[in-house]
Amino acid sequence: MSRPTAHEVLAAVLQIRDGHLQVLAWQRAREPDAGRWALPGGRLRDDEDVEASVRRQLAEKVDVREIAHVEQLAVFSDPDRVPGPRTVATAFFGLVPSDADPALPADTAWHRLADLPPTAFDHALIVRDARERLRAKLSYTNLGFALAPHEFTISELRALYVGALGHPVSATNLQRVLTRRGLLQPTGAIAPPGPSGGRPAGRFRFTDRSLRVTDAFAVLRPPGEVARSAVP
Amino acid sequence: MSRPTAHEVLAAVLQIRDGHLQVLAWQRAREPDAGRWALPGGRLRDDEDVEASVRRQLAEKVDVREIAHVEQLAVFSDPDRVPGPRTVATAFFGLVPSDADPALPADTAWHRLADLPPTAFDHALIVRDARERLRAKLSYTNLGFALAPHEFTISELRALYVGALGHPVSATNLQRVLTRRGLLQPTGAIAPPGPSGGRPAGRFRFTDRSLRVTDAFAVLRPPGEVARSAVP
Repeated sequence: MSRPTAHEVLAAVLQIRDGHLQVLAWQRAREPDAGRWALPGGRLRDDEDVEASVRRQLAEKVDVREIAHVEQLAVFSDPDRVPGPRTVATAFFGLVPSDADPALPADTAWHRLADLPPTAFDHALIVRDARERLRAKLSYTNLGFALAPHEFTISELRALYVGALGHPVSATNLQRVLTRRGLLQPTGAIAPPGPSGGRPAGRFRFTDRSLRVTDAFAVLRPPGEVARSAVP
Repeated sequence: MSRPTAHEVLAAVLQIRDGHLQVLAWQRAREPDAGRWALPGGRLRDDEDVEASVRRQLAEKVDVREIAHVEQLAVFSDPDRVPGPRTVATAFFGLVPSDADPALPADTAWHRLADLPPTAFDHALIVRDARERLRAKLSYTNLGFALAPHEFTISELRALYVGALGHPVSATNLQRVLTRRGLLQPTGAIAPPGPSGGRPAGRFRFTDRSLRVTDAFAVLRPPGEVARSAVP
């Protein structure tokens, strides 16, 4: 037999801010784990599923229209993950484009993943899994759209990939690969030279702003169909 | 406020049998949904997380050593997904290589996804999601290893991909793509000609039997590192 289990949803919302991958968290005012930083979320209500719940609870912290992508990450279910009654968490991850700067409640702030303050419960594990999911999906999907503004130069896009991946990326190679896969298109606009001068740079956008696998083996595609499978 | 919620785990275990994608299910003897076919699984126990729970419960239906891959699929949490007390399900999907033929309890059988008998609750949705996850991951990971025997001819491998994908696949292209990505290696063995004669066929194996993304953009890889990211 098993006793009743509470269910909560939690979201690791990520954004590249100031060139660094950052996560949205709020500081707990009450025990347990008072003073520590927690991911947005809370109890699943009787009348909602986990997707509706995470959107409702995110809306209490941030303008959800600013979130370009949300997906289920994983279930966190260690019997001792939180004190008190057993609580299973469905964790989500979300992405906010770099040009958004949503208003936040007083208890809520962005934190660099490389320099996280003390986090509540198992939330640091959820943040780590979200970062790994983001890094993996940048490599085989068009998910960069959810980190980027609607228009950008290759140099700006490169900075977002570097911030997300945490290692150097060649702007030339990035442009070549994304273009070859049909993910990028020039807007026709030209960005003025930066403060250090140089040539004006062309501006680009993602061709698609919903998630798709960008390199399903051509050989595995259904005949006559563009790869656009459900993306786990 | 929310009332306590029960939590269950369920697994869609898939195998290519007789050239068709099939799923393991057991026939419910009792109401609700008596006579309908259900996925293996059940209540999460107090002392286990969802991964331990799904392995324990699968072991009651099938020799779990025969399962080459298991991963979390998604949470199914519609408030009315099952009658009675609210129950949130963490669904998994598992893959059994085509040469395994595990002993099954009397109430349990394999069923073709293309011709499923009446299924219990929302289990048909879970099966559908498992199929989509499998198809997507065949396109950007080495997950074919979990459908295939340790050694196989290209013709045998092609039949597995056709069964999983549900559309024609060229053996020549499949061999070319998988070889170019370093997923296949010849074993040196030669299969005897089939009943219809023809040339003896070389035998192959997957170079790796744990999941990895096979085409992380080279440009996005950390310098000097082979792509082997956490695969969502």
